[in-house]
Amino acid sequence: MELIILGCHSASPRQNFHTSSQLLKFKNHLFLIDCGEGTQMRLREEKISFTRIKHIFISHLHGDHFYGLIGLINTFKLLGREIDLNIYGPKGIKEVILIQMKLSKSFTNFNLIFFELEKKYPEVIFEDDLVKITTIPLKHRVYTNGFLFEDKLKTKKINYDNVNLYKIPSTFYEKLKEGFDYKDGKGNLVKNSMLTFNSISPFSYAYCSDTSFFTKIVDQIKNIDILYHESTFLNRDIDLAKKTKHSTAQQAGKIASLANVNQLILGHFSTRYNEKSSFVLEAQKEFKNVILAEQGKKYNF
Amino acid sequence: MELIILGCHSASPRQNFHTSSQLLKFKNHLFLIDCGEGTQMRLREEKISFTRIKHIFISHLHGDHFYGLIGLINTFKLLGREIDLNIYGPKGIKEVILIQMKLSKSFTNFNLIFFELEKKYPEVIFEDDLVKITTIPLKHRVYTNGFLFEDKLKTKKINYDNVNLYKIPSTFYEKLKEGFDYKDGKGNLVKNSMLTFNSISPFSYAYCSDTSFFTKIVDQIKNIDILYHESTFLNRDIDLAKKTKHSTAQQAGKIASLANVNQLILGHFSTRYNEKSSFVLEAQKEFKNVILAEQGKKYNF
Repeated sequence: MELIILGCHSASPRQNFHTSSQLLKFKNHLFLIDCGEGTQMRLREEKISFTRIKHIFISHLHGDHFYGLIGLINTFKLLGREIDLNIYGPKGIKEVILIQMKLSKSFTNFNLIFFELEKKYPEVIFEDDLVKITTIPLKHRVYTNGFLFEDKLKTKKINYDNVNLYKIPSTFYEKLKEGFDYKDGKGNLVKNSMLTFNSISPFSYAYCSDTSFFTKIVDQIKNIDILYHESTFLNRDIDLAKKTKHSTAQQAGKIASLANVNQLILGHFSTRYNEKSSFVLEAQKEFKNVILAEQGKKYNF
Repeated sequence: MELIILGCHSASPRQNFHTSSQLLKFKNHLFLIDCGEGTQMRLREEKISFTRIKHIFISHLHGDHFYGLIGLINTFKLLGREIDLNIYGPKGIKEVILIQMKLSKSFTNFNLIFFELEKKYPEVIFEDDLVKITTIPLKHRVYTNGFLFEDKLKTKKINYDNVNLYKIPSTFYEKLKEGFDYKDGKGNLVKNSMLTFNSISPFSYAYCSDTSFFTKIVDQIKNIDILYHESTFLNRDIDLAKKTKHSTAQQAGKIASLANVNQLILGHFSTRYNEKSSFVLEAQKEFKNVILAEQGKKYNF
């Protein structure tokens, strides 16, 4: 999995502080998560073959998370796109995109498929053989979802003592890892559970932005690998965080700790802070394995 | 008058090829003309105190001319703006802006005043003591206006022989330049026309983008100082220009020549051309005084 941070700041975009957008390369998919103004320029800057994006996830309808969407759709049109584009976002997103297309008398040659979200509980919004994506309802000033990306392929660990005992051919090991039982030439069945240990937890990534401190999400993101959690403010501005329904870095750390994730990425910083190291220090009061999102940075997990 | 080119390319924005937007500093006003995606970032880059902008003119509702407007309004809100913002643009612009504000539950502390345009003949849309702004109906795929900015203050030239003859006090010269008649202490009137020569032509600037070759505009922009005219294509792509209702550089030159303007600025270039000098050469077949719009360039007239 590769995660590319296109922008990780809140509110107004500036040249070096783009607003929320990230690209997740996962199991041969390019998933775009949020799409602040200028995202299409950031995609070009990072030399991403962005016409391959087929799924765009919009957390909520605040400008710093979706004002770049209409421009990206327009550019797809200009580039002659023909493949479907799937857009997942809060109810209303379809209307706001279509009205702009109608006013400019522009029609796409590709299908623009909207999945409008309004549920207040987790909902599987995408699934194929390898990946499952579920909403994470968050708590913000407007209806907002985070997104949980999960690798469905649970790889099992071979029990070498038993595969030797039952004389399982090594060519069947990959099948065993995927959970298949073994049948020999005489039709005798050996249950997979006899030949493997428990599954290794598959890879998982949760994007949680924007949200106030909201422990209700903990169960859903328990033991995941990577959590991107918003930390718009530092604790000294906790009143502002409460008022605007955002989180502080320490609160993000607390969620990571409660959920026992492997790593926390902090993002969605207010531009009021010139210096970001305090975000890490503050989050580390609650949870050790913390890194800062950085515009243009690529994380390989 | 100072004109700052924030972006002068067509279609999709790229880092160094921003889409249409320009700032006109004129008689203590900051007029923003068109507002492609990322315009607010360009305003910051050019270090323009953009909160002083009170009037925004949108030529038409194609994305490369207005997708940056909602983000700019949002940023004005975040910056605590309280003064009115006047937006002039095609009918529909109010709906598309308000629907986005409604969905994000955001309300401005300032008045957002829309002047929706739908007339097909020139219309004065702004006027104060010093400046008059008139629409220039253009011919494009959707309803489009250019804008004519005129300095209203016609300064007259003093006729020194006659002011001496009539013994006009020099303290009254400024009044004479503004067109006032002179009345002496005994109530005798001397007509202004006896004391001055004809007006010096006031300054004028016309923004004409996007449009196909459209000679109907010539009368309205006759003898103006500066004409910004779109030249999306070169003549070798004239079929494409016709099809998409854009102009070639030579056609822009032809309009400048027919209108006998002082200077032509070419802009709204397609990114298909790596090299821009052909635009000048082509326009100069029709009209000599041609310059290219350049992103970030400031023109003082």
